[in-house]
Amino acid sequence: MHLETHKQAVVLLSGGLDSATTLAIARDRGFSCHALSFDYGQRHRFELAAARRVATALGAADHRIVRLDLSAEAGFGHSALTDDIAVPKDRDETGKDIPPTYVPARNTIFLSVALGYAEVLGAFDIFIGVNAVDYSGYPDCRPEFIEAFENMANLATAAAVEGKGTFTIHAPLIRMTKGQIIRTGLGLGVDYGLTHSCYDPQPDGAPCGHCDACLLRRAGFKEADATDPVA
Amino acid sequence: MHLETHKQAVVLLSGGLDSATTLAIARDRGFSCHALSFDYGQRHRFELAAARRVATALGAADHRIVRLDLSAEAGFGHSALTDDIAVPKDRDETGKDIPPTYVPARNTIFLSVALGYAEVLGAFDIFIGVNAVDYSGYPDCRPEFIEAFENMANLATAAAVEGKGTFTIHAPLIRMTKGQIIRTGLGLGVDYGLTHSCYDPQPDGAPCGHCDACLLRRAGFKEADATDPVA
Repeated sequence: MHLETHKQAVVLLSGGLDSATTLAIARDRGFSCHALSFDYGQRHRFELAAARRVATALGAADHRIVRLDLSAEAGFGHSALTDDIAVPKDRDETGKDIPPTYVPARNTIFLSVALGYAEVLGAFDIFIGVNAVDYSGYPDCRPEFIEAFENMANLATAAAVEGKGTFTIHAPLIRMTKGQIIRTGLGLGVDYGLTHSCYDPQPDGAPCGHCDACLLRRAGFKEADATDPVA
Repeated sequence: MHLETHKQAVVLLSGGLDSATTLAIARDRGFSCHALSFDYGQRHRFELAAARRVATALGAADHRIVRLDLSAEAGFGHSALTDDIAVPKDRDETGKDIPPTYVPARNTIFLSVALGYAEVLGAFDIFIGVNAVDYSGYPDCRPEFIEAFENMANLATAAAVEGKGTFTIHAPLIRMTKGQIIRTGLGLGVDYGLTHSCYDPQPDGAPCGHCDACLLRRAGFKEADATDPVA
C-alpha cells in the first residue's frame, strides 16, 4: 500500500489561466491538492467546465464546486460578472481604477469557504492565484489583503487556536507579470488550451477577445513569446 | 414623502436569542437593518423560520436567506450542527474547550458574505451577535477575531480602498453575560418567544433542554430574573 505523505492544500480554481498555473505550482511543491471552485452566478460559466478539465489534467486529489448565489436575483449583483452590466471592452489597462467586473468581497468569500474546507480536511495551506501586477484594479488581489486575511484566519479557527498548525495563504503569482505566469505554467506542463479566461464569452464559449481578461491574456502570451492554444 | 435618512446596516440573523437582541440594538441605534441568514445545512433549521419571524417583528428593512451548503454531503460537515455527530448534552460550560458544535470558519464565511452584501448596498456597518463571555469556546466569537476581520475587510473592498467609507464590524454583545443580553433585549421590546436556540430540537421544533444552547439560554433567563416564553 502506498503511504500518502504529501501535505494537503486547498487550491482555489476558477478555470482561468492564473488558477491553473497556481494548481501546477502547488503540485510541484509537493502538495496533495483539493481544488475548490464556485458557482456564484457568473456570466462566464464556461470557466466551471474549464475548472473540471484543469483539475483532472493537473492531478488534483479532488475537485468540489460550491454553489453560492451572488447574482442580482439573490440581492448581490452590482458586478458586470453577475449582473446586467456591460463588461468593458478594449479598456486601457494602464489606469488602475476598479472596473465594473469587480465582485464585492469575492476573494474574501472564496478564501473564507476555502478556510473552512481546509479546516475540515486538516490542511493548513491555501493557494489562490491572485496577481497584483497585471491585475485589473481589484483590491482583493493585493499583498496587504492576503496578509490581513491570513492573520484573521489564524484567529478564526479552532485548528489554529488549538495550536495544531498555522494557516498560510499562498499567492505564488502575486508579484509575477502575466508573461512570467505563462512561462512558469508552461515549464510545469500546464495545457492552457484547457483554460477559460474571457468574462463575456460567445454562446459557444469562444472568447470575446476584447474584455480585460482577454486583453491581459493576449498580452501575456505575447510577453511569454508563446502561442495561446485557445486563441 | 418621508425621506429615509437612516444609515444602513447588514445584521447577521440566526433566529436565536443573541442575534435577535443584536438586531434590536442596531435598530435602536438608528440603523435601517438588512437582515441576512444562512441556510447552510444546519440540523436546527427551525432557526430559519425563527429568523423570518424575528426580522418581521423587529422591523428589519428586508431579510435574505443565502443558501450555502456546508453539510457533510458537500464535503464540509465535521460539526455536530451539520454532520452525523452527536450534539453534546448537559456539558459542563466552565471548560473552555472547543465543542463539536463548532462549524469550521462559520463566522468568517458569514461575515464575508455580509461584507459583500454591505458593499452592494452601500452600507459600512455590519452587526453580528457573537459573545465572548458565555460563549461555548468558539474562536470566531472573540474580540481579536472581530478586530482582525474588520482590518481585513477594509483592505478587501473597493468601497473602503476608494475612500467611500470604513467598514465597522459591530459586536455589541461581545462582553455581555447572557443575562445582560436578555435584559437588554427585553428593554428594547424583543419577544424572545419568537426565537429558537436549541441545536438539537425535537421533530416539532421544541428545544431539547440539554444542549449547550439550551443550557446557556436557561442560565441567562435565570440570571436576568425573567421567564423564557419558549421554555
